[in-house]
Amino acid sequence: MRLPKPSCRPTHLALVTSLLLSPLLAQAAEGMWTLDNPPTALMRQQLGFAPDAAWLGKAMRGSARLAGGCSGSFVSPQGLVLTNHHCVAECVEQLSSADKDFMKNGFLARTRDEEKACPAMEVNRLEAITDVTDQVKAATRGREGEAFTKAFNAIRAQLTASCVGADSKTQRCDLVDLYHGGQYKLYRYHRFQDVRLAFAPEQSIAFFGGDPDNFNFPRYDLDMGLLRVYENGQPAAVKDFFPVNTQGPAAGEAVFVTGHPGSTQRTLTVAQLEQLRAQRLPETLVDMSEYRGRLAQYRTQGEEQARMANAELFYVENGIKVLRGQLAALNEASLMSAKRADEARLRAFVARQPALKPSAGAWDAIAQALQNYRSYRTLNNQLEGGRAFNSQLFGIARTLVRGAAERSKPDADRLPEFAEAGLPAVEAQLFSPAPVYPAFEKFKLSYSLEKMREHLGADAPVVKQVLGKDSPEQLAARLVDGSQLADIAQRKALWEGGMAAVRQSQDPFIRLALALDEQSRALRQRYEREVESVIQKNSERVAQARFAMTGPKVYPDATFTLRLSYGKVEGWKEGDAQVPPFTTLGGTYERATGAEPFALPASWLAARDKLDQTKPFNLVSTNDIIGGNSGSPMLNARGELVGLVFDGNIHSIGGAYWFETARNRTVAVNAAAIAEAMDKIYGAGTLLKEMQGR
Amino acid sequence: MRLPKPSCRPTHLALVTSLLLSPLLAQAAEGMWTLDNPPTALMRQQLGFAPDAAWLGKAMRGSARLAGGCSGSFVSPQGLVLTNHHCVAECVEQLSSADKDFMKNGFLARTRDEEKACPAMEVNRLEAITDVTDQVKAATRGREGEAFTKAFNAIRAQLTASCVGADSKTQRCDLVDLYHGGQYKLYRYHRFQDVRLAFAPEQSIAFFGGDPDNFNFPRYDLDMGLLRVYENGQPAAVKDFFPVNTQGPAAGEAVFVTGHPGSTQRTLTVAQLEQLRAQRLPETLVDMSEYRGRLAQYRTQGEEQARMANAELFYVENGIKVLRGQLAALNEASLMSAKRADEARLRAFVARQPALKPSAGAWDAIAQALQNYRSYRTLNNQLEGGRAFNSQLFGIARTLVRGAAERSKPDADRLPEFAEAGLPAVEAQLFSPAPVYPAFEKFKLSYSLEKMREHLGADAPVVKQVLGKDSPEQLAARLVDGSQLADIAQRKALWEGGMAAVRQSQDPFIRLALALDEQSRALRQRYEREVESVIQKNSERVAQARFAMTGPKVYPDATFTLRLSYGKVEGWKEGDAQVPPFTTLGGTYERATGAEPFALPASWLAARDKLDQTKPFNLVSTNDIIGGNSGSPMLNARGELVGLVFDGNIHSIGGAYWFETARNRTVAVNAAAIAEAMDKIYGAGTLLKEMQGR
Repeated sequence: MRLPKPSCRPTHLALVTSLLLSPLLAQAAEGMWTLDNPPTALMRQQLGFAPDAAWLGKAMRGSARLAGGCSGSFVSPQGLVLTNHHCVAECVEQLSSADKDFMKNGFLARTRDEEKACPAMEVNRLEAITDVTDQVKAATRGREGEAFTKAFNAIRAQLTASCVGADSKTQRCDLVDLYHGGQYKLYRYHRFQDVRLAFAPEQSIAFFGGDPDNFNFPRYDLDMGLLRVYENGQPAAVKDFFPVNTQGPAAGEAVFVTGHPGSTQRTLTVAQLEQLRAQRLPETLVDMSEYRGRLAQYRTQGEEQARMANAELFYVENGIKVLRGQLAALNEASLMSAKRADEARLRAFVARQPALKPSAGAWDAIAQALQNYRSYRTLNNQLEGGRAFNSQLFGIARTLVRGAAERSKPDADRLPEFAEAGLPAVEAQLFSPAPVYPAFEKFKLSYSLEKMREHLGADAPVVKQVLGKDSPEQLAARLVDGSQLADIAQRKALWEGGMAAVRQSQDPFIRLALALDEQSRALRQRYEREVESVIQKNSERVAQARFAMTGPKVYPDATFTLRLSYGKVEGWKEGDAQVPPFTTLGGTYERATGAEPFALPASWLAARDKLDQTKPFNLVSTNDIIGGNSGSPMLNARGELVGLVFDGNIHSIGGAYWFETARNRTVAVNAAAIAEAMDKIYGAGTLLKEMQGR
Repeated sequence: MRLPKPSCRPTHLALVTSLLLSPLLAQAAEGMWTLDNPPTALMRQQLGFAPDAAWLGKAMRGSARLAGGCSGSFVSPQGLVLTNHHCVAECVEQLSSADKDFMKNGFLARTRDEEKACPAMEVNRLEAITDVTDQVKAATRGREGEAFTKAFNAIRAQLTASCVGADSKTQRCDLVDLYHGGQYKLYRYHRFQDVRLAFAPEQSIAFFGGDPDNFNFPRYDLDMGLLRVYENGQPAAVKDFFPVNTQGPAAGEAVFVTGHPGSTQRTLTVAQLEQLRAQRLPETLVDMSEYRGRLAQYRTQGEEQARMANAELFYVENGIKVLRGQLAALNEASLMSAKRADEARLRAFVARQPALKPSAGAWDAIAQALQNYRSYRTLNNQLEGGRAFNSQLFGIARTLVRGAAERSKPDADRLPEFAEAGLPAVEAQLFSPAPVYPAFEKFKLSYSLEKMREHLGADAPVVKQVLGKDSPEQLAARLVDGSQLADIAQRKALWEGGMAAVRQSQDPFIRLALALDEQSRALRQRYEREVESVIQKNSERVAQARFAMTGPKVYPDATFTLRLSYGKVEGWKEGDAQVPPFTTLGGTYERATGAEPFALPASWLAARDKLDQTKPFNLVSTNDIIGGNSGSPMLNARGELVGLVFDGNIHSIGGAYWFETARNRTVAVNAAAIAEAMDKIYGAGTLLKEMQGR
């Protein structure tokens, strides 16, 4: 895929809320298992091996979550973290400038002194999982609609605050909803906020083949990046890590992926799938495709434009491939008929069980909630979803405006994103020294304002309120040119000054966010009351019915929390052709054309004769992964790192809705290629030795 | 809508072939009636008036068809033709240059000497309709697949050639398939090829509100253009024309629209509708939306880029609104369930009638043909559909390559587009002096090549054959820079030199078109054999069943042939609000912001005080129209022109699949506003008097 980061850009990609999850039954190699409930019997049966508690504990603490929406792993006792290039690209871009383009030329810290701090990067390590199902259920029992949402937010705030305790700088706690309300768990993470870049190859080899090859295989990508986490100015000492096995895995070998799959929707109701198919997916695809065209053309206008728009275009193109694949899956007659049959079976089961009577109306209630949402869905997406204001500065302004209001309330009454336990992360984001490019801000914002007018119509009151007699370009220019929010000191002053400072501010973005806040909140409340809470309540009923029918050994839909997937190194059959599981370094040179996105960097051209052309480069395996798994370690049974997950094949995209055993494949960089390239192309032998535990 | 031109760009918009038509039953105001079968009883019942034969004959000969895909009407005895600005925009652009921008500043010929010849414009007037059903059915009887297609093409070539006779310069004959094979008619047209521009206002008022207001109402557009047809260097003498009534129509008044609706799909099978909904519409929307983004951003790169890309962007944005509306209609549960119920009723009827036994398998046969097509649909669209090569020069090269091969065959064996009777139109297009912009050619072509690679994959043989080691940009530059085909003399030499000259040509576009011709033709033949002929044959069976069930007083799906629609001037209810049928000139000034697309031209700002602000500007009526009706006259019962159709409201888009009586509305410029503007803003009183028959 370039497994998309699931959580960093909720506007476009987080198509289904985590409230819609329910449990799933496993088939061969299928499953994103929580680490406290691995399918050991199945694994033993299918692989002849199942990990024990020590293996699982080490796997948990050796795995890393990147706050932007990626996975990674610790690969040395001195805090080295291996992940994908596309997971560190934002940092690489932020460290670059017009003179020093590390995206283009790569980056290598030859010594630790040369490692550069990433402005807005955070790495989390899962330390403990605690079951809090009883507390949550007790707090919400008997409540509906707004009362339910309030009670839920309150218990969440309370549980996470007491879990974090005094040390919110190094602790993070999330309340995790599994099997849609089947279980609630507290996940406690250790936070690393001093994250530095150690190595990144040139983007042209990290993303060789570009968008055309994305989600495809055979593949030839060195999609890797190395970070190091620091504590108190020193490399963090790490006990659990995965040493790199420079042989890589054999064909047919059992492999294990730990990581943070972002979101699956494998147990949505037919009505929810139909809404995705008819409305959300096509509408979002159309919007993103137009934006893709704008960005791609903007990139041709100059080197600086290209540099500014690079990451955004990647994100958009990657997202389009995902959504397109999802839409194609939903348009497969076989998928939809399987879902219909499954739902009919479950409803028939419910009809026969007097104990499940409360569940009988759940499907219709969900369908009705979606129907009710239609009349204000577009408005809600534009305003509360923020689609109308594609601008870093607007995002900052809204955080300042909302944060001022929310922080003055008791913790339990706040919007969840401003709960006390999460404020350090909010502040890290808000005060990030990541650069703001005024020209690019204007480009993005004027376009999104234009789309707001298109989607709501020129006569909509909010459109008139926002634009007045301005064109989108005029307004975007006035806002960006008039704002001081690019200055971190200004943000700090407004954050610390609270609502009084915010109300006095003449910053045009603050004024705009203030002016829209009331109607935006009203939309959110209406959505939570009429749609979200109804779906949540009724999805829980569906989930209970499913539990009753299928029993307990199932895995929950993905929630961007740590999961274990098992599988084998194995190709697949594409039509009549058998796709082999490995590509070679030599194949890269055959595929190269000299022109983007098939142009190799100079380093690779120069090193051609030094490389062992027969070494495996990328590989596929049968593991069950999805966006968010980017950067996941691929381990062998001994817990050594044999690969680095960076993508899935084209059939993996439908994995949002079902697992197609025969064709769904994970795509990874072979550890053998990582070693060969670091050693012979990049002269990064010191880092490589550290990763081998030498 | 800006009713899109239906036939000029088959790649994107001609989503359904004219082979899929079948008869329709009429509801109130519904219907696009052929002029030889008007619903006089219905009209008398609903309007208290029905036109007689004289009225209809005059309406037929007073109406005009613009070869690019628009409608129009004769409005003076000296050959003045009234149509929309967006129907003459291509000519206006072609007559413009970097110094003289008539799109921006408008154009008025103060005398006939100042009227400027449009480089690639043809106006047709329908003169006669002849029933040839028996001949066509006799020629194809008992044939299937390829044999059917061959026999059909042969009889078509024979009938049109004998209809045109010796005078192909002034005669055009089309074989028209109505009710899908229910009837075949020969339509004979008089051709006017010397077409000159007399008047066009500034685009900023012709398309005031731009894409945001497109397909919306209230509306404030002077979407008009005046052409004059010449014969032998003199204004053509015209007997039948519509004098302009400068009062315009009253609310509730009966109005009649004659024009050329391009294509409706009101009787497709459910399988066909599902294929549109699941594949064609979303895929095309996504492609066009990305292209829209590219074009819109390209336009910002300079005035010249804006000028070059203007028409293309309009076409694309308009098409997107249409497709989006069509997709939304197909995603309405009520539409699809109505279609399912209708199909079930018809199939049940068929099952009860032994005489209709051959029809029973028709629905499944159509579904199977669509299923069979899936494996090569994308390839066919890219190659034979030409999506891979969005370039005027490539189109010219393909016409030269195919034309050389086809013209050497007997008329009956040719591809239909090279039948003898149609060659004058092919030549007019091929030798058109319309400018070719190399920079814009490269822009369009490199983008379409990039999309070809995306859709077929970098490993597809044809992608490797076309691109080799070039990037899309490199190849596009090499082709455009190396080609001589912008030079009309070169085209003439190759056309006249036939296959020998073509084979010797070193022009890179000719080489490319030659290299792809065999596989492209093979795809077309496979499609015709396996899909098109199967659908044609079985749609005919469906149509016969429908005739048997409903009887004869029905109208055929639209085919870009002359139709009559009747209705009333009437608003509609949008949600809880009643939309009035008229806007006023004064409302224009209230809506204006000074910024595009709500910026009024200087002429309108200057004339504000001179205008009667209360005069009606645009209006809506209940007539049943669709893309291709752009430029249609709106007539009163006396045959006077009271309005100029240029759009439909947003609900009219679903008219592709059904007629929603309560909300589907035609949008027109009121004749009163045409008169007021021509007189007081443009000083075009001389032309206005001519249009009033004075």
